[in-house]
Amino acid sequence: MEELIEIGKRAKKAAGQLGNLNTEQKNKILMRVADLLEEQADAILKANEKDLEMGREMGLTGAIVDRLTLSRERISGIAGGLREIVQLDDPIGEIEEMKKRPNGLLIGKKRVPLGVVGVIYESRPNVTADVAGLCIKTGNVCVLRGGKEAFQSNNSIVKIFHEAIGGLGLDQHMVQLVQNTDRESAVAMMKLNDYLDILIPRGGAGLIKAVVQNSTVPVIETGVGNCHVYVDEAADREKAVAIVYNAKTHRPGVCNAAESLLIHRDVAESLLPLIGKALAEGGVEIRGDETTCRLIPGAVPATEEDWGTEYLDLVISSKVVGSVEEAVEHINHYGTMHSESIVTENYSHAQYFLDRVDAAAVYVNASTRFTDGFEFGYGAEIGISTQKLHARGPMGLRELTTNKYVIYGSGQIR
Amino acid sequence: MEELIEIGKRAKKAAGQLGNLNTEQKNKILMRVADLLEEQADAILKANEKDLEMGREMGLTGAIVDRLTLSRERISGIAGGLREIVQLDDPIGEIEEMKKRPNGLLIGKKRVPLGVVGVIYESRPNVTADVAGLCIKTGNVCVLRGGKEAFQSNNSIVKIFHEAIGGLGLDQHMVQLVQNTDRESAVAMMKLNDYLDILIPRGGAGLIKAVVQNSTVPVIETGVGNCHVYVDEAADREKAVAIVYNAKTHRPGVCNAAESLLIHRDVAESLLPLIGKALAEGGVEIRGDETTCRLIPGAVPATEEDWGTEYLDLVISSKVVGSVEEAVEHINHYGTMHSESIVTENYSHAQYFLDRVDAAAVYVNASTRFTDGFEFGYGAEIGISTQKLHARGPMGLRELTTNKYVIYGSGQIR
Repeated sequence: MEELIEIGKRAKKAAGQLGNLNTEQKNKILMRVADLLEEQADAILKANEKDLEMGREMGLTGAIVDRLTLSRERISGIAGGLREIVQLDDPIGEIEEMKKRPNGLLIGKKRVPLGVVGVIYESRPNVTADVAGLCIKTGNVCVLRGGKEAFQSNNSIVKIFHEAIGGLGLDQHMVQLVQNTDRESAVAMMKLNDYLDILIPRGGAGLIKAVVQNSTVPVIETGVGNCHVYVDEAADREKAVAIVYNAKTHRPGVCNAAESLLIHRDVAESLLPLIGKALAEGGVEIRGDETTCRLIPGAVPATEEDWGTEYLDLVISSKVVGSVEEAVEHINHYGTMHSESIVTENYSHAQYFLDRVDAAAVYVNASTRFTDGFEFGYGAEIGISTQKLHARGPMGLRELTTNKYVIYGSGQIR
Repeated sequence: MEELIEIGKRAKKAAGQLGNLNTEQKNKILMRVADLLEEQADAILKANEKDLEMGREMGLTGAIVDRLTLSRERISGIAGGLREIVQLDDPIGEIEEMKKRPNGLLIGKKRVPLGVVGVIYESRPNVTADVAGLCIKTGNVCVLRGGKEAFQSNNSIVKIFHEAIGGLGLDQHMVQLVQNTDRESAVAMMKLNDYLDILIPRGGAGLIKAVVQNSTVPVIETGVGNCHVYVDEAADREKAVAIVYNAKTHRPGVCNAAESLLIHRDVAESLLPLIGKALAEGGVEIRGDETTCRLIPGAVPATEEDWGTEYLDLVISSKVVGSVEEAVEHINHYGTMHSESIVTENYSHAQYFLDRVDAAAVYVNASTRFTDGFEFGYGAEIGISTQKLHARGPMGLRELTTNKYVIYGSGQIR
């Protein structure tokens, strides 16, 4: 697709400049964008209103409209996020493991930008500013392909980036928004190997699967979380109820929310009714195995499909297991390698769970809701990787970099 | 393809066991394999002879036959390689950046195996043992899909792994060789997302491109090296001649050999004849631009295609440039981001080259031939990554691992 090849060429060119800016210069861009976002909030809200109008005509549902809607507060929040990125350490340029080899070569591993980062995302306009901000701080050019439903909002935000970048005499193409929001532009991005170094899909399971299946550009798979809480026979009762309740109800629509409860049969009789009561009060529908349905009034029978489902809603599946081994086996079979938690006071069970569960984040006695760049102390997040290559778990600034070996010689040959 | 799904299932199962062996147990396997390789060298050589016979019938050429041929010495070399892997530190289990968050959560980044590593490779049977050895040491199950031409040799080596693993009472399926060597088995491997965590192609540019284009399993792109040596106006004359000669002729068939010479116009008149003479004595064909052809007797005119070609042979392209900037631009345009070298005594030119060339390894005053796991001090190498994701440059043990966040809580909820 012609538009994308043009974007790609301009991105490559801008990458040479952006990758060699120093931290001060990059921070200056971010501060300027933050100021302009607040100054021009009216224009952004006007653009957002256009998107919302069209969304209403298209019959978009409540949750999408909510994600799409901007307000003066949300815009201030976006600006505040950029100012926080300014405060973070710049990973670029650091040289690790510099060492002198026996032949006198001095070899170091220098942290450098990836180059050009592509992101395909859905309704949330704040992603536009978050991604562009993280990319600028790490010296990466970004190519943003947002959803049709947020196009006007995204465009108004990218215009502000252009104003800030251009105002500093730099190449505006370090941030580019794909103007074509048809399916074909997403497909074209997935084949843009000559210009993109990495492609990150952010959105629902359908989008992510399509990108993983079709992209020849290296992809970082993010976000799908069929997360479990396993309540062990040696669980502390109060912690068990609190953690299950929090992991499910604190924010049910996000990837680190729990979707499935596993509980040891020796404590099912005494604990499931308590957990069931708490969840019911939180408005949660419970889909359970036979024992769950017997012990929790109102629970409905689960099907095989339920064990593999990420509801992203006030629904949870529930199953009784015979041992921590069985719990781990169930999790490794049905889970999406995102976040998994055991509630137990038994040392060996805790260690077994930590060792054997194959996931980005494995918890003992804590809610799965903590898997998050901010909670982990990275100060920012471009997504949560559920794959094993390059990055696993919350991706901060460092995960937007790669290395380059720099070798200082004095005439060495082999 | 049925065979691969079976292999995949067995691999997943074996991964649970192998990933939790301690270093001593893994080393025991490797030592036993090394001993058996030497004890059973006759059987391996017999199998190798079968491959060679069939190769001769198929009319394989000299270089492939050479890579395919085993000898008692080569087998000892393979065994020695495994014993060296035993000596290396085991990266698995190490926990990095363990920190206490303000809410009391103790969060650490634990180094864990990738899981199941697939490798598609061509004629060299030593790759079978090297890859299996590196994978066992890092707790990874490997699925090996070697070339048809080396099948008997590969099979005899894998049998020895099975004997060693089985003899220790462990699951032999931690090392598996795909029995079908048709194209379809390679294609099936590229779609084996449910069982493979990573796929590494090792071989010629054609194989690597096919895997990158068609695999839905995350790929690490390796090996293609269109490497340059740039002789700057401020180059030391002796170093320039020695480095160009070494980078081109030391081992022309490997990926870190130089394929292209760039030289500043101010030193072309005085240096090109010297370099040309040395290369000619080394039997190197020179394909040059106009100035090169004028200054080096016997040089033939280069075409546009030459600038982008990895010859892997005693051929080099040669071009005169006007500045270090032009050299860098040429390299970033035609190079494959592998290994690039500048010969100069000028500090600013050296720094500019190091900063601006976009490659896995960038050298000042040294031969490109040093890009290698052993030369870099890693003691082993599974390939040289030319992509930016996950690993860039020589990949050692650490690059066969990923991380898992382990979080110790005491009832934390959000």
